[in-house]
Amino acid sequence: MTDTHAKPEIANADPVLEKALAILGPRGLVTDADTIEPWLTDWRGRYHGAARALAQPETVEELAQLIKLCGESGVPIVPQGGNSGMVGGATPDQSGDAILLSTRRFQGIEIDEQTMTARCGAGVILQVLHEAAEDVGLRFPLSLGGKGSATVGGLIATNAGGTQVLRHGTMRALVEGIEVVLPNGDVLDLTSPLKKDNRGFDLKQLWIGSEGTLGIVTSAVLQLVPAIAERRVVWAGLPDIFTARKLLLHCQRAMPDALEGFEVMPGICIEQVLKYVPNAQSPLEGEHGWHVLLEFDAAKDAADGFGEAVEQVLADAFEAGLIEDAVIAANEGQAAQFWELRENISPAEKQRGPAMQHDISVAVASMPEVLSKAEKEIPELFPGTMVMGFGHLGDGNIHLHVCEPGAPDKAAWEASTGKAVSRWVYEMVTAAGGSISAEHGIGQDKRDILLETHDPAAIRAMRAVKAALDPQGLLNPGKLV
Amino acid sequence: MTDTHAKPEIANADPVLEKALAILGPRGLVTDADTIEPWLTDWRGRYHGAARALAQPETVEELAQLIKLCGESGVPIVPQGGNSGMVGGATPDQSGDAILLSTRRFQGIEIDEQTMTARCGAGVILQVLHEAAEDVGLRFPLSLGGKGSATVGGLIATNAGGTQVLRHGTMRALVEGIEVVLPNGDVLDLTSPLKKDNRGFDLKQLWIGSEGTLGIVTSAVLQLVPAIAERRVVWAGLPDIFTARKLLLHCQRAMPDALEGFEVMPGICIEQVLKYVPNAQSPLEGEHGWHVLLEFDAAKDAADGFGEAVEQVLADAFEAGLIEDAVIAANEGQAAQFWELRENISPAEKQRGPAMQHDISVAVASMPEVLSKAEKEIPELFPGTMVMGFGHLGDGNIHLHVCEPGAPDKAAWEASTGKAVSRWVYEMVTAAGGSISAEHGIGQDKRDILLETHDPAAIRAMRAVKAALDPQGLLNPGKLV
Repeated sequence: MTDTHAKPEIANADPVLEKALAILGPRGLVTDADTIEPWLTDWRGRYHGAARALAQPETVEELAQLIKLCGESGVPIVPQGGNSGMVGGATPDQSGDAILLSTRRFQGIEIDEQTMTARCGAGVILQVLHEAAEDVGLRFPLSLGGKGSATVGGLIATNAGGTQVLRHGTMRALVEGIEVVLPNGDVLDLTSPLKKDNRGFDLKQLWIGSEGTLGIVTSAVLQLVPAIAERRVVWAGLPDIFTARKLLLHCQRAMPDALEGFEVMPGICIEQVLKYVPNAQSPLEGEHGWHVLLEFDAAKDAADGFGEAVEQVLADAFEAGLIEDAVIAANEGQAAQFWELRENISPAEKQRGPAMQHDISVAVASMPEVLSKAEKEIPELFPGTMVMGFGHLGDGNIHLHVCEPGAPDKAAWEASTGKAVSRWVYEMVTAAGGSISAEHGIGQDKRDILLETHDPAAIRAMRAVKAALDPQGLLNPGKLV
Repeated sequence: MTDTHAKPEIANADPVLEKALAILGPRGLVTDADTIEPWLTDWRGRYHGAARALAQPETVEELAQLIKLCGESGVPIVPQGGNSGMVGGATPDQSGDAILLSTRRFQGIEIDEQTMTARCGAGVILQVLHEAAEDVGLRFPLSLGGKGSATVGGLIATNAGGTQVLRHGTMRALVEGIEVVLPNGDVLDLTSPLKKDNRGFDLKQLWIGSEGTLGIVTSAVLQLVPAIAERRVVWAGLPDIFTARKLLLHCQRAMPDALEGFEVMPGICIEQVLKYVPNAQSPLEGEHGWHVLLEFDAAKDAADGFGEAVEQVLADAFEAGLIEDAVIAANEGQAAQFWELRENISPAEKQRGPAMQHDISVAVASMPEVLSKAEKEIPELFPGTMVMGFGHLGDGNIHLHVCEPGAPDKAAWEASTGKAVSRWVYEMVTAAGGSISAEHGIGQDKRDILLETHDPAAIRAMRAVKAALDPQGLLNPGKLV
């Protein structure tokens, strides 16, 4: 963001920008192309757009006025949080018609320790919220790779997931209330602290996961949970994904309230990390078909005998033939190393070369079969490709990455064979009753495949709601539906 | 419901009913006035309507065809589950234009023990679901007074609450998926067992709590939880509602995962029960300003040392001056007696005479003050009235009943002073940032007061969604918005 307060240069005396400037003031409207530039490309570098200006209102009232102005002038608005999305949902098209809207100036965190909630501005960065909660002995139990950039507003707009969904749910489960500005400029305050309220439809649910197509979230009240008193992070090796599923059930039955993480990784993923990431080390000595990273957490009231209980769960799993080997992190440093190994899968893959990435979900019980089918059939149909399916087995959500076979022209491979791989994956997942987007959303990246694979009745209902709330279609056009 | 399969008599050769008969068959369309009659009056006997016929489709396809027919013919549809709602939401108006639609033939319960879910027809009665879950060592953790009549479809349409919301949430938190027929006849299957799915708006949230105004729920997948291994039901006496709030916090901090019930009752409520209900007995010997019914539950994995933990919580509460006296039910029989005493408040009140009933919520922390204000000011403003505020303090939800002062003409009192009392209550609650309907919904009973007290921006948004999905306004007209 710029810090200059000089009056922005407005090209060709654009009357909409003149009015926007009057509403937002010089700090709230950026027209300098160099300042805007970084925000016009998406996180993965796959989309690049253009914008008339970057608006960064400071108050909800300013935002409401800006939205009314855009409605009167027919100017599209593309909202953006931390610009760390995976599907181009915050990148404008190339026409340069749209105003890019940043919510990053909506700041402030107020924590109510008694009700264990945090009232946050939409621009608050996830990492900052984590730290604020920790400072008072609480925590916000949602985390993901982009936590240093992702904002509360963006997390809500995309119903973000991550590695703790198994126990605490996605963003939707953690949002107690939101304040949102509608396409007609109405400000809707849905942050009331009521635990029960049956005054009509639960409107806030509409905006969670709507990817900025129905309104702009300006602040939220989020649920916090007690800080972790003790945790046990475990690395386990086992022969196949079917056994991993059995281990998951075993752990869920034994310690349902403690299991917070259950990440699965095929042996091939770990090999890549060891090969490409300096100083990476496998926690286990032998080779295993699959690896599982487990995290068990205890709050203060459940910490008695907790370590012993985890050891017992693992001993029982070994006895039952569910694990070949396992190690419990001896200290926080080792626990962090285990998680780092998991988080290094994507960086290692990036060094290796391009991959078609699919964020899919199916019923947890069906995942082993779906994954085995993909591992077997994709290399047969697309020779030389390597399939890496890893991630949140406990949520039925796997990141199914298909690495290119060393093609001379990577971009050409992606555009032809790569596309065919993705189509095959999405059709298989749809046939299995699954989702083509478990946690990353639709954005512009998956819009066409959504329209092809999704229930037409659901598309009709979504479009009806969109048309009702945004009849001019000015909010984040070209995204989602 | 009728069991006759004879062809219904259709008055004046009503062409819509002729076509409906062709779709539904003789068992699916009831025109006999005596058979329909009981379903035209609401649970509390305050609303009475008329209907063209009673439709009771057997299949989703039949229902979709009926809805399309009604759309083509401009015939309103009033859906009904167990007809046990509190706000006249399932009672048609007196025009006789509407078809009353019963979902009671959508039956069937399939329990998946592994995923702990139940797939139910909308017509399944809550009590029946409770028993089916118990049969396999699970439970459905939502219960309320009307459980012998209330259906799954009605519970979803009204986002029902009850006495276990504190730990398990309202119906919304327990619905994994629904199948719904839309006003345009589309059948939307939102019952996929995916734990994560970010393909656009979470549509199912729209229908939960929409009171039949946006579509008809035909089946649902509901979350079950493990059966209770052990429970401790406690009756406590304490001086005032402020202390009750402190006791709540004390229990929530000490045993956050175990506290399932926290019902507060003023001494005057208990006096009424002892006076009007034969054989009712107070669990405590002395007199107390307020009584609290607490339930602590332990699942199998948490049953170790559970009884001792509850005793410790109570001992600490006594030590801290939070309770004057308390007794733990010695066995299941006594536990049931404690709950019966709580459930007898409404029957006792009914014997005493009419009362204006208000199902309100405010932030839990604000409830003691709101309640004290009501107890002090209502009898001052409306002499002779008696205020009884009882219920789910843990949810910030109190049933605030104001008993009439022995007026000679009860009906006249209700229509004049009673109405003024209600207006005072709703205005006070709104000023305190609360809800005029915590769990009972809006129906026809609270529609006008909703329009007067609610945020106009929220009403506009609800009306926009309603118009988008039901442009003819044929589904449950005159209810909600």
